[in-house]
Amino acid sequence: MKSHTEYLTFNTKKRRDLIHLTPQLEQILAKSGVAEGFMLVSAMHITAGVFVNDDESGLHKDIWKWLEHLAPGGVDYEHHRTGEDNGDAHLKSLLIHHEVTVPITKGRLDLGPWQRVFYGEWDGQRPKRVIIKAMGE
Amino acid sequence: MKSHTEYLTFNTKKRRDLIHLTPQLEQILAKSGVAEGFMLVSAMHITAGVFVNDDESGLHKDIWKWLEHLAPGGVDYEHHRTGEDNGDAHLKSLLIHHEVTVPITKGRLDLGPWQRVFYGEWDGQRPKRVIIKAMGE
Amino acid sequence: MKSHTEYLTFNTKKRRDLIHLTPQLEQILAKSGVAEGFMLVSAMHITAGVFVNDDESGLHKDIWKWLEHLAPGGVDYEHHRTGEDNGDAHLKSLLIHHEVTVPITKGRLDLGPWQRVFYGEWDGQRPKRVIIKAMGE
Repeated sequence: MKSHTEYLTFNTKKRRDLIHLTPQLEQILAKSGVAEGFMLVSAMHITAGVFVNDDESGLHKDIWKWLEHLAPGGVDYEHHRTGEDNGDAHLKSLLIHHEVTVPITKGRLDLGPWQRVFYGEWDGQRPKRVIIKAMGE
Repeated sequence: MKSHTEYLTFNTKKRRDLIHLTPQLEQILAKSGVAEGFMLVSAMHITAGVFVNDDESGLHKDIWKWLEHLAPGGVDYEHHRTGEDNGDAHLKSLLIHHEVTVPITKGRLDLGPWQRVFYGEWDGQRPKRVIIKAMGE
Repeated sequence: MKSHTEYLTFNTKKRRDLIHLTPQLEQILAKSGVAEGFMLVSAMHITAGVFVNDDESGLHKDIWKWLEHLAPGGVDYEHHRTGEDNGDAHLKSLLIHHEVTVPITKGRLDLGPWQRVFYGEWDGQRPKRVIIKAMGE
């Protein structure tokens, strides 16, 4: 059995941002030497998410607008009694989910033709980490 | 360590459809020889999803209606500038999630009494794949 | 390869409740002897969920209110034709998701500084199980 762990740190200039992770994940997979197994890609903060979808800029705008509709900012959340103002980022993280497991087959990320992995940041402008752990043989 | 990978292809007659996967997953598990481990079941398209819930037709209608309410079709999504008309299917895929990891114990899918695995199609009528990868010992 | 499986049973006094699982998961991890790998934490019922977020009581109120808004109770769901009255609990389970995969690194749950694992119950007052399976080396 082989396992390999790396951490990526993102410090986005904008508070909300989207980062395409697939190229970096492919590099990490190459280093791992795993040919058959799983790669877990998981945000280590609770105001960010990781998801799989299409790399199409119009769709990204739709996703952002949709998240804002279902988990709006500018609401007086109870969480804000702590001094935070990021209640909506927590809800967006729950909605999108904070992790994906990508299958590894014959040494490649076994994604479908349009599937790409993204990091969604909803409370950035500070260093935040994503863990990538590949396990298999 | 053992690993076993299969792909299922679905070409639904209706644009939106629901397929119960559990019986096929049990057959794949038997072929894999894995007694203890994980089975990843993941849609390879971004307009479909995989989820675990109850095999009850009334509930399935509720889920369909609920998804249509939270991620409606017939909206002028930005994604449609590309010529596509399936923006809602992308959002439904994000909401339901495209993958599940099912535990394998003593050679069985270790699901609760009412848990069944489903493939949710929101933009079908063309061949689309699901990857199933079992890993363990 | 090592694998270790345990089941936790919860019988909440209230119909809807939230249980912080992280301390119990750490104990299970210690028993498993897994140093590098994955821990799957998955509700075995379809009216409950497992998620990762902040252990902050105000936020928990926000999450509860938000779930009630997006997947409301008191609705005449089709599922209720079966005699059940928990249609909303099924939808809440789909929205939050019923499982998480936690990375294990150097014998520890490799969670970020504020990440904690929770069990969300939306139809309790009866015994319900969660499976925890650690796998790795």
